[in-house]
Amino acid sequence: MTVLTRNNVVLSGNPGAPAMVFAHGFGCDQSMWRFVAPAFESTHRVVLFDHVGAGGSDLSAYAPQRYGSLDGYAQDVVQILEALELGPAVFVGHSVSAMIGALAAAQRPDLFDRLVLVGPSPRYIDDEGYRGGFSAAEIDELLETMDDNYLGWSAFIAPVIMGNPGRPELGEELTNSFCRTDPAIARRFARTTFLSDNRADLARVTTPALVLQCREDVIAPPEVGRYVHEHLATSELVLLDAVGHCPNLSAPDQVIDAISAYLSHVAARS
Amino acid sequence: MTVLTRNNVVLSGNPGAPAMVFAHGFGCDQSMWRFVAPAFESTHRVVLFDHVGAGGSDLSAYAPQRYGSLDGYAQDVVQILEALELGPAVFVGHSVSAMIGALAAAQRPDLFDRLVLVGPSPRYIDDEGYRGGFSAAEIDELLETMDDNYLGWSAFIAPVIMGNPGRPELGEELTNSFCRTDPAIARRFARTTFLSDNRADLARVTTPALVLQCREDVIAPPEVGRYVHEHLATSELVLLDAVGHCPNLSAPDQVIDAISAYLSHVAARS
Repeated sequence: MTVLTRNNVVLSGNPGAPAMVFAHGFGCDQSMWRFVAPAFESTHRVVLFDHVGAGGSDLSAYAPQRYGSLDGYAQDVVQILEALELGPAVFVGHSVSAMIGALAAAQRPDLFDRLVLVGPSPRYIDDEGYRGGFSAAEIDELLETMDDNYLGWSAFIAPVIMGNPGRPELGEELTNSFCRTDPAIARRFARTTFLSDNRADLARVTTPALVLQCREDVIAPPEVGRYVHEHLATSELVLLDAVGHCPNLSAPDQVIDAISAYLSHVAARS
Repeated sequence: MTVLTRNNVVLSGNPGAPAMVFAHGFGCDQSMWRFVAPAFESTHRVVLFDHVGAGGSDLSAYAPQRYGSLDGYAQDVVQILEALELGPAVFVGHSVSAMIGALAAAQRPDLFDRLVLVGPSPRYIDDEGYRGGFSAAEIDELLETMDDNYLGWSAFIAPVIMGNPGRPELGEELTNSFCRTDPAIARRFARTTFLSDNRADLARVTTPALVLQCREDVIAPPEVGRYVHEHLATSELVLLDAVGHCPNLSAPDQVIDAISAYLSHVAARS
């Protein structure tokens, strides 16, 4: 089975243009980019994929040990870019995939032209002199509740993550997406995600990055976005006038505009 | 039937001390103050009550016209304070009850010593030069979803309002509280609340006020708390290091400390 089948890689857009890879976050799949990716099909070769264990990926490829750390997912991203041979790509990662992309870029800078990190967090748990937004006890409770009743947990937390109480269909979509995910895999991915600490890895990233931060986000609060911006060698921070953790669904136009502006002035400079 | 029965008024604390009245928000009842009110029982005569249509109030007293505007609820607060004859009170109102208290104080300043407004909003819908946090379309959708399926709506929105994804029991409690509310009354109260515009009334309030604002709140965002602070004649704004719309449940110690500090330095000045 090829890497491209394993990760359900789907190509669209301009075949001759530079590659733009979109990576989805926890409990989601490539469809979470449907409002954003099409905007770049004229200027880029658009690459969508599902992490192993999500969407149309090959569930049989899920290996608890490989995917017990974000490095396993980063390896997959590297393998996808190697297999595609499209040259240095713009990597757009949402939520946990922002750090997955950062890890991949730190390891193989030659494969990455730019990073776009949407709601990144290098560590969700507060620490000495660092605010991640959650106490260790809160993350423990989050994971326990998830173990007790995955569907109930999904129905509870997905809308909270989405925010935007005035647009309940957004929370519903995320809830359904969570519920479509294999519970056993989701539990493991949640542990891998929420217990990760990749703060030290930020310094290893040399690829220029755009950090997109929502002004209100219960998963990755603004101070976390600032932390990522300040600890990357070369980055720009854009605070979106959007609430919730999924601007790719709740405020796609702002995400598109911010990415386009970043890529165009980056191009203008070089 | 007396006013005190109608509103399920419960007295505790120091009989000789000044009165401190706690008013609950939409979909809640006086139990929402259980982590905060006891802290003031030694220094105040603590007054808890349920709005008509909530908790242990007399549901038969619910009159759509009277309670079709926040003034009806403000009248009840005035009647409660008149009936108790405890002198000018410290009024602590959460969410919509913050504006209810402001309306009552504007009408009868003689009954109010201080106002404590927890997560107040004079208008939830954005307007020319004003950000309430919701578009008209979002509020419409919120109310429609509520009409279609009240229990589903409650289960969806209560956790979003509560925030604190790491402490799911908080969202669960609010969900259960919403679900205990009579759906017909809840729908009307939601309309009265979310379609209200009491911005002009703020200027009529002469009672000194403390505005308690959470740093992240999907119902009453920080700019709304600032707006209330700036449009009251005499007020202090305290930004709580808390997330969600219900710090009385999620961060009671911060609420207690902020109120105590306010009352003590107010006392020191006078």
